[in-house]
Amino acid sequence: MRLSAVGEFGLINRIKQNTINDHSTVRCGIGDDAAVLKPTGNMLQLATTDMLVQDVHFSLATIGPWQLGYKALAVNISDIAAMGGLPRHALISVALPRAVSVAFVEQLYAGLKAIAAKYALNIVGGDTVSSPVGIVINVTVLGEAEQDRVIYRSGAREGDWLVVSGTLGDSAGGLHILREQLDFAGGEPLVQAHLLPEPQVELGRLCARYQVHALNDISDGLASELHEICAASGCGAVIYQDRLPLSRELGTLAAFTGQAAADYALYGGEDYQLLFTARPETVQRMLQDNPKIKLTVVGETAAKETGVVLVDERGSSMPLLPGGYNHFAGGEKR
Amino acid sequence: MRLSAVGEFGLINRIKQNTINDHSTVRCGIGDDAAVLKPTGNMLQLATTDMLVQDVHFSLATIGPWQLGYKALAVNISDIAAMGGLPRHALISVALPRAVSVAFVEQLYAGLKAIAAKYALNIVGGDTVSSPVGIVINVTVLGEAEQDRVIYRSGAREGDWLVVSGTLGDSAGGLHILREQLDFAGGEPLVQAHLLPEPQVELGRLCARYQVHALNDISDGLASELHEICAASGCGAVIYQDRLPLSRELGTLAAFTGQAAADYALYGGEDYQLLFTARPETVQRMLQDNPKIKLTVVGETAAKETGVVLVDERGSSMPLLPGGYNHFAGGEKR
Repeated sequence: MRLSAVGEFGLINRIKQNTINDHSTVRCGIGDDAAVLKPTGNMLQLATTDMLVQDVHFSLATIGPWQLGYKALAVNISDIAAMGGLPRHALISVALPRAVSVAFVEQLYAGLKAIAAKYALNIVGGDTVSSPVGIVINVTVLGEAEQDRVIYRSGAREGDWLVVSGTLGDSAGGLHILREQLDFAGGEPLVQAHLLPEPQVELGRLCARYQVHALNDISDGLASELHEICAASGCGAVIYQDRLPLSRELGTLAAFTGQAAADYALYGGEDYQLLFTARPETVQRMLQDNPKIKLTVVGETAAKETGVVLVDERGSSMPLLPGGYNHFAGGEKR
Repeated sequence: MRLSAVGEFGLINRIKQNTINDHSTVRCGIGDDAAVLKPTGNMLQLATTDMLVQDVHFSLATIGPWQLGYKALAVNISDIAAMGGLPRHALISVALPRAVSVAFVEQLYAGLKAIAAKYALNIVGGDTVSSPVGIVINVTVLGEAEQDRVIYRSGAREGDWLVVSGTLGDSAGGLHILREQLDFAGGEPLVQAHLLPEPQVELGRLCARYQVHALNDISDGLASELHEICAASGCGAVIYQDRLPLSRELGTLAAFTGQAAADYALYGGEDYQLLFTARPETVQRMLQDNPKIKLTVVGETAAKETGVVLVDERGSSMPLLPGGYNHFAGGEKR
């Protein structure tokens, strides 16, 4: 069935089902001029938005509608996690070509609703419009954080340790497999990491509790995020290539493609792991208290004059370039 | 200068200037993973979002970038007004073809910032991405309203008066002039009404203070909005064609085009005036207390069985069809 057969209002009625996962915070969701939400007393409010454009941010050749919905919301939840906050509500706008099938749209929203339910988020508003060409999805996520416990990217201090969660580069490896249709066995975890990234909400909350100094999610590659923290905090940093947490699967892929595994990790992006800086004793306490969370110390902050430096496996230092993706610069998104 | 010459980060630096109009409510605006906002104690939070797609919602043949920015934010502010709320913050995502000039984008943001300043709104976040084809703008506006003073569209009661603000149909008339390039003198106020609609925030706040029963902004034409209120409230309504507030300019245009002026008002849309229902004595008090605000009683609510009825100038009753725009239905947006 084509969208034109159900129309905008038929579509909205289908979308409205199962959108509220925490009724205590919603007076009115989808269906009036604006959503009406009940903030938690004394909390600060967080807000972030991201727009995904077909054939710029995603290609239907490599991602299905369910995964696209899941991922569109995941990347915004990740931004809330990157402030140490709790995601609460989402507003979702979608521009769709008329030829899109109802089944496609239902799968898209099924993916959105699946991750909303997983993180107890409410989908409280949105817009569904037609598009002359490709699909565009804009997600806004609202969250909350305790007063004076929000973690900015500008709080890094000299002598902090640099810590990352999980493994890095898997998503870029997965994208490489999908793009080049690589005939590579055992790449499924990498493809999963690319298609269904898991925002690190629990770790973000932990960072807030332990009062880490600076926090970013790794959306544009470790190099780019580290530069952002250093620029915002007015410090430098040194990271060690041999400490980068790399999965076994990424190592195998790197051997297969001939590309350095560290390149995927440093410049690949879309990992949605967290990068934070904190006093060494804070990191040690976090590691002791939370042995189940995978955290890796990859380096330390330094004086501003140091710049952002990578120490390679032979011990040689070199400036680490930001890399990552720059819209409008004329390149292809990695 | 082309966008590709300044890049995404150069663009963001230009956008960031003059975005905060009320510093007391913003801990962090553009520049981190998420905005950090300070809600007012005891207020409910409102959130609304709208996506505008080139050649679906607007054409660069009839609107310039400054006006486009102004209007994109105006229509979202109007949704907050339509709940009786105060707009506070906006997040703005824009997808831009690489060939767009920097001057165009600066004009677009100048329009956004002009209306933000006018309503003391903060632009606290957004996303700037590239688009393979046309321009897409998504605006999210956050607002606040006093507990138990939010006005929903579902609160109409039998025996309420139906009230509209301003004059109706001007925007549709203006669009008609622009689209058909009508050689019609004196249409400037209509064109202005279309390009630069003024959200009725002050009146929305008044509606909240006077506790009107149901409230909508008129984005899709009076007929469509009235149907929404009646459907949500479970009532019917009767409106009188000869009471519709029509501007002199619209009357002249109607004589020129041969289209009934009432058609522009009933089905035209994009007026962003308010439609509300309230007890007759409430309306009378509002009119007495606020003689400067243009309000017109156009009819009254009725039993559900009545349906939504239009009484024409000869006194004949007929069902009023919703009209207005339905995405995906295959029609052209009026």
